Amino acid sequence: MREADILERIGKELGQVHKLLHGRRLLLQMGDDAALLAPEPGCETLLTCDWFLEGTHFLRNKHRPDSVGWKCLARAVSDIAAMGGSPLCFLLSLALPESCNSRWLGQFLTGLRRGARHFGVELAGGDTTRSRRILISITVVGEVLRGQAVRRSGARPGDFIYVSGRLGEARLGFELLRKGSCRIPGASAALRKHLYPVPRIELGRQLAEQHLVTAMIDVSDGLSTDLYHICQASGTGARVDARKIPLPRLPSSRSLQFNPLQLALHGGDDYELLFTVPRRLARELLDAYQDLLLTKIGEVTRSKEILLEDGNRLRSLIPGGWDPFVR
Amino acid sequence: MREADILERIGKELGQVHKLLHGRRLLLQMGDDAALLAPEPGCETLLTCDWFLEGTHFLRNKHRPDSVGWKCLARAVSDIAAMGGSPLCFLLSLALPESCNSRWLGQFLTGLRRGARHFGVELAGGDTTRSRRILISITVVGEVLRGQAVRRSGARPGDFIYVSGRLGEARLGFELLRKGSCRIPGASAALRKHLYPVPRIELGRQLAEQHLVTAMIDVSDGLSTDLYHICQASGTGARVDARKIPLPRLPSSRSLQFNPLQLALHGGDDYELLFTVPRRLARELLDAYQDLLLTKIGEVTRSKEILLEDGNRLRSLIPGGWDPFVR
Repeated sequence: MREADILERIGKELGQVHKLLHGRRLLLQMGDDAALLAPEPGCETLLTCDWFLEGTHFLRNKHRPDSVGWKCLARAVSDIAAMGGSPLCFLLSLALPESCNSRWLGQFLTGLRRGARHFGVELAGGDTTRSRRILISITVVGEVLRGQAVRRSGARPGDFIYVSGRLGEARLGFELLRKGSCRIPGASAALRKHLYPVPRIELGRQLAEQHLVTAMIDVSDGLSTDLYHICQASGTGARVDARKIPLPRLPSSRSLQFNPLQLALHGGDDYELLFTVPRRLARELLDAYQDLLLTKIGEVTRSKEILLEDGNRLRSLIPGGWDPFVR
Repeated sequence: MREADILERIGKELGQVHKLLHGRRLLLQMGDDAALLAPEPGCETLLTCDWFLEGTHFLRNKHRPDSVGWKCLARAVSDIAAMGGSPLCFLLSLALPESCNSRWLGQFLTGLRRGARHFGVELAGGDTTRSRRILISITVVGEVLRGQAVRRSGARPGDFIYVSGRLGEARLGFELLRKGSCRIPGASAALRKHLYPVPRIELGRQLAEQHLVTAMIDVSDGLSTDLYHICQASGTGARVDARKIPLPRLPSSRSLQFNPLQLALHGGDDYELLFTVPRRLARELLDAYQDLLLTKIGEVTRSKEILLEDGNRLRSLIPGGWDPFVR
């Protein structure tokens, strides 16, 4: 495969995901020096990028190429959701080794295209090159109504802390995959969460529009680390009730030993939303999202400590989530 | 170094490059889920990204870390210049091996900061992770007045073809570096061009504003390949006069044998601008840029072929520039 062939394949798969953006907002896609986007009046632009590297974020012999395509985009889109924004388009930086054949590329692009459709984003451009391992970097551009972006820094003492969905499922899915236990009963939800996570775009956007939240982050590193990020940015602490945390459902296998609380606290890769809500709006939040699993897991405190109430014990919750530099 | 330490170093070096953008346009820098940029009314947004990988784009034992920092940004900024836009901010995706020490990071960030200042761009955000080799991907966001972006596709038969500066110098610089011939007389200009290229931001912007150009690209792959890109996008051919191409000045060494025309045709990495100008505007162009080396090297033709007139010979000019997949 020459560079031109690879670009042609990418263009064919992702050239026109949906016509709405293309032509009206995305004035120029791949094929020029830069992509050209018409900003929406009254909106601000959101920018985020995420690595997805063979050996660090995925294993070529464990992760199907279409999952790699889906997930590299989902991760980056999730950051836009966590700001309360709408993702618009993305840039794909892709570096491939010679050992990576045309079939791998095809399946990767299929997963990427499905993700792009699902998340409502279009390919704006990118860069391709040769490397020893598969390297992916995704930049996502989103938008949010002026002044409506939800930052990490807005949490106030007394706010309730909520999380969407279940935590720890994705990490459980990874462990099952790693151990070759994909086919045991009850494994599929966790595997799906690990391989094809769905960022909470609609929830994030609505929470921002309805001004229900004071701070928000997506759970990518793990609850313990991401809650620490909110507290640090907001100059607060937090108190979390371990019994309230929505834990993963474990598969029914005696040979596998997992601690669901540890998975939920430090597992990461969940792409759920963690957010803080003023007490007086808690009722309104529950009324607005009756159909969604939103769980109040604790509250923001004035003291800078993050405490975990676990039965009768009260202990410090140390950030123990994903840090690529400490493994 | 933990991830938090690396982010702190990056924030310290690049947290506030210049105050103009920060606070007024760049509402949120690194430290949240995404960066937040206020678009300028009447402008369109330009987006581009570029790989800069150890082993592919630089060699750790040959290229000083501050050159790596400068050049990874210059390459990406050059794409904005080639659209006639103004670069605003950038995202830095950085992956470091354990073998890469704090000193390397410090010098890399110094080069990156100097580049950012020189090009007038600010760090908006990024992502860091661990890898086996040093991996860099830079996304640059720029802006251009609505409708004023210069594409590759606008060249028309009869247009004159111009290039800024000299071509082939950067490749000459690389060859000198590779051969350990950095200190021979006359090497410094070529080395500077290879290590610290300066994208033609001001020239690109002015050419677009003055509506002097019909198509433009930056010479990153090499004249033969980049002219091919313009011709392909425009549905034209071209005829280039080899005697007109501004060649690199060779260092005065008998032991080094270089073909300056080959360097200029296929060398790449020049980050000069290659653009097409309607005949009737050629006079105006020369009047406007008397102080700058702009060279008319040929003209756009109706036939789809790209021909090189070399003395009495007329031959096809085959794209022979940089293709990372064919080496």
